[in-house]
Amino acid sequence: MFETTIEADQRLPVIWLVRDFAATPDKLFRAHTDPGLFVRWVGPDAMTTRIDHWEARRGGSWRYVSSENGAEYWFRGCFHEVRPDRIVQTFTYEAEPDGVALETLWFEDLGGGRTRLRTRSLVDSFEGRDAWLRSGMEVGVNEGYAKLERMFLDGTV
Amino acid sequence: MFETTIEADQRLPVIWLVRDFAATPDKLFRAHTDPGLFVRWVGPDAMTTRIDHWEARRGGSWRYVSSENGAEYWFRGCFHEVRPDRIVQTFTYEAEPDGVALETLWFEDLGGGRTRLRTRSLVDSFEGRDAWLRSGMEVGVNEGYAKLERMFLDGTV
Repeated sequence: MFETTIEADQRLPVIWLVRDFAATPDKLFRAHTDPGLFVRWVGPDAMTTRIDHWEARRGGSWRYVSSENGAEYWFRGCFHEVRPDRIVQTFTYEAEPDGVALETLWFEDLGGGRTRLRTRSLVDSFEGRDAWLRSGMEVGVNEGYAKLERMFLDGTV
Repeated sequence: MFETTIEADQRLPVIWLVRDFAATPDKLFRAHTDPGLFVRWVGPDAMTTRIDHWEARRGGSWRYVSSENGAEYWFRGCFHEVRPDRIVQTFTYEAEPDGVALETLWFEDLGGGRTRLRTRSLVDSFEGRDAWLRSGMEVGVNEGYAKLERMFLDGTV
């Protein structure tokens, strides 16, 4: 229904994601903070995700594992800020423990039951940012957001 | 005894701090993670600091207030990583709630009871980084590290 824009910032070691959804900001916020909803849409279709730890509040932390054919991919971080219009969190893929992204998500009300999700991932080098863009991350992003869109359409959220 | 180097990164919205101390990495780590030690050195001489909340562990969070003549300055963040050679944390000055820095501290053993502290503060714009550099932040940095150096010399840590 909607497209996801994935863009490298020109000046900053940042990846921008922008995607509209046919859902209210409140629903989009819940889909990102309720662990039972989150695991149903995050990541590529071929993976299943399980929560290890999840406290979606200011000062809380999170950890989950996505798996496919027995291979496990662990991710973790802390929630710096959780408020209805904005989430700020850190993000580490545990196989690369020294890499840390600072992620900010904005839920912008477009009216008429639509919301724009903007995500900014700030990392510490352009090389790391570009390697991430080349890693095939768009598959997980696009398939994940398509799952989320279906959850809004079928009333799961 | 030692000087602090404060440098703006050329390519990244980053401030680098580098400072050597006549202390082991373990002592420098404790001075950054033990709240009773931390409040004794952080910030300018004219301020006193009180901990509101402090969990120096992976996934924990922190908040403290520095005050001078009745004026209070609140800071908060979460600890993404706390390990003997490296701390990664978020940092917000609460009067500017939308500003978030991702801070990484490295404790590098120089041998002979000396340790190099390197701190990298990554923010989301060059304008914000440069405003921070112009804010007089070097006073707090230099006076704070001088207090910390005295605590190593007099055996407090």
